Amino acid sequence: MTQFIGTNDIRGLLRQTGIERFLVGLGHYIEADFKRWALFEKSARLASHSRDGVIELMPTSDGSLYAMKFVNGHPKNTAEGKLTVTAFGVLADVATGYPLLISEMTILTALRTAATSAVAARALARPGSRVMAMIGAGAQSEFQALAFKALLGIETIRVFDVDEEAVEKFCANLAGSGLTIVRAASAADATLGADVVTTATADKARAVVLTPGMVAPGMHLNAIGGDCPGKTELHREVVAGASVFVEYPEQTRIEGEIQQMPETFAVTELADVLAGKAAGRTSAAEVTLFDSVGFAVEDFSALRYVRDLTTAQQREVDLVPELDDPKDLFGLVRPDLPVAMVRVHELAVS
Amino acid sequence: MTQFIGTNDIRGLLRQTGIERFLVGLGHYIEADFKRWALFEKSARLASHSRDGVIELMPTSDGSLYAMKFVNGHPKNTAEGKLTVTAFGVLADVATGYPLLISEMTILTALRTAATSAVAARALARPGSRVMAMIGAGAQSEFQALAFKALLGIETIRVFDVDEEAVEKFCANLAGSGLTIVRAASAADATLGADVVTTATADKARAVVLTPGMVAPGMHLNAIGGDCPGKTELHREVVAGASVFVEYPEQTRIEGEIQQMPETFAVTELADVLAGKAAGRTSAAEVTLFDSVGFAVEDFSALRYVRDLTTAQQREVDLVPELDDPKDLFGLVRPDLPVAMVRVHELAVS
Repeated sequence: MTQFIGTNDIRGLLRQTGIERFLVGLGHYIEADFKRWALFEKSARLASHSRDGVIELMPTSDGSLYAMKFVNGHPKNTAEGKLTVTAFGVLADVATGYPLLISEMTILTALRTAATSAVAARALARPGSRVMAMIGAGAQSEFQALAFKALLGIETIRVFDVDEEAVEKFCANLAGSGLTIVRAASAADATLGADVVTTATADKARAVVLTPGMVAPGMHLNAIGGDCPGKTELHREVVAGASVFVEYPEQTRIEGEIQQMPETFAVTELADVLAGKAAGRTSAAEVTLFDSVGFAVEDFSALRYVRDLTTAQQREVDLVPELDDPKDLFGLVRPDLPVAMVRVHELAVS
Repeated sequence: MTQFIGTNDIRGLLRQTGIERFLVGLGHYIEADFKRWALFEKSARLASHSRDGVIELMPTSDGSLYAMKFVNGHPKNTAEGKLTVTAFGVLADVATGYPLLISEMTILTALRTAATSAVAARALARPGSRVMAMIGAGAQSEFQALAFKALLGIETIRVFDVDEEAVEKFCANLAGSGLTIVRAASAADATLGADVVTTATADKARAVVLTPGMVAPGMHLNAIGGDCPGKTELHREVVAGASVFVEYPEQTRIEGEIQQMPETFAVTELADVLAGKAAGRTSAAEVTLFDSVGFAVEDFSALRYVRDLTTAQQREVDLVPELDDPKDLFGLVRPDLPVAMVRVHELAVS
């Protein structure tokens, strides 16, 4: 049997661990996997683009476990009451090829994206950072806020979104979280006095959410909204003026903020910083930029984490047959063996 | 909610439709999709090779539906009571990116491979073919036998396998099927008088199951065992002497029998034959070869078929969250909302 973790299971899991504690633990798993980065089989995600969106497959393996995430991005979905991004993932055993776990990853992706941002900021933001600007109060925003509180010690969030209702939602969801929330009048207002600026906007377009005038010396920029070809958030000069850190350069050059820059634009891999092989922030005045697009290893870490957190007996599905004789697949469908009946549409069999 | 079809559901479905009737209907779906071949987004499968096997992702889309199969190949699995090949698949809505269906595909892959072989043979084998040699009596063999009976009118199977137990299993599973089964003393003996020769052996190696001396004029060769780099079944001269038909040349040149041939070796696409754009068999003496490696469009057809056959209400899983406000993902995990608890391993949260 294959373990199954549905959205209700993840909700129950988060309730029991607490979201911040879950994020701290997930951060440990992500950091541990980034530190053994070279072990992973890495490739750019396999994307199927259509008029209204994209469906992507993100596989990776460390030679022992294989993970694959199925994720979509459809900005118009919200107009019909659906999510822009949904996802699910699979963890499989490399030695046998058998799937071990299927998990919802809509919620888990939001959590791992936030945890990765906070892990990066822990290495790149100024020590003692307490104020974060949050530009874009969409689906990812509360997760970012809580991850930065739990992993970095952020105490105040200055939030702005062109959509007033999104800001209302953000404030309501974080009431009681212990964070001080300040509603900013503009993106520029949000960045005033911020140690960290997180941009998480959703338009599938070249946007300029952050202009050079908003960036003060010493800031850490956490750019997570620009994550596919043609979709960026930062003014080109903001990128040019920052020390840029990325997950997987081959993918980020296609999908991240640096798609605006020449192929030779220098970037540092976050994995090298976390492993102590490359410098992170080198001065208090330096502007650091984590140009995050999301990478398969983070999903691998998240699936590994929830698998370790939950018991295999929690909930299972019959995704793979169990046979007395593995060479006798047909034995499963022999007409003389008992089987539960299912409802069949008669018309469709011709 | 996402529809779920497990191994038990597929077993029940097959029992109700009957395997042969299921194969005939599936053959219709496969043929219909091959006839609109140009519509599909096609790519070589994305493979992750390891010491003992391979895990592959096979995506495709017709612009309306997106299908993806996760499939492994681990020949050593049988030694520990596991299957060499297991698979599951996903059907998603291109317009929203939402997964519609998750289905077991271990059994379904065997069925679609057999149905594809029979659809190809219907276009390529001599009219009136009644005798098939079956070389290799493994997991795929009974499905091939029944598909050729149901779709082509094969009446007699001459079976050979180096493994006597596999032949026993084959005969036992097909007792009562209406097929006349002849146990051959060798691969050469199996091919005597055969109209169609199906090779379905499992070694991950360059094998020579079929040599030129076994091939008579007019035979149709259905080579399905050679399906990954370094794995072939036919003597090079057998391939050179046949008119070769393939699913997707870009993939078959890497994985099929024609990996033994130069890049310029002429092949015809099965889709062109089925659509009437290319000739199939042109004379009674011609040797035709369907060099099958399996392609994502066949999985697409199979998933589409079982979705049409079953009701959406059959069995569902909470793979994607349902939200009152699609912009409020965090609302799902707010600490003040009711949720079912799950068992958590305390040690793993640090």
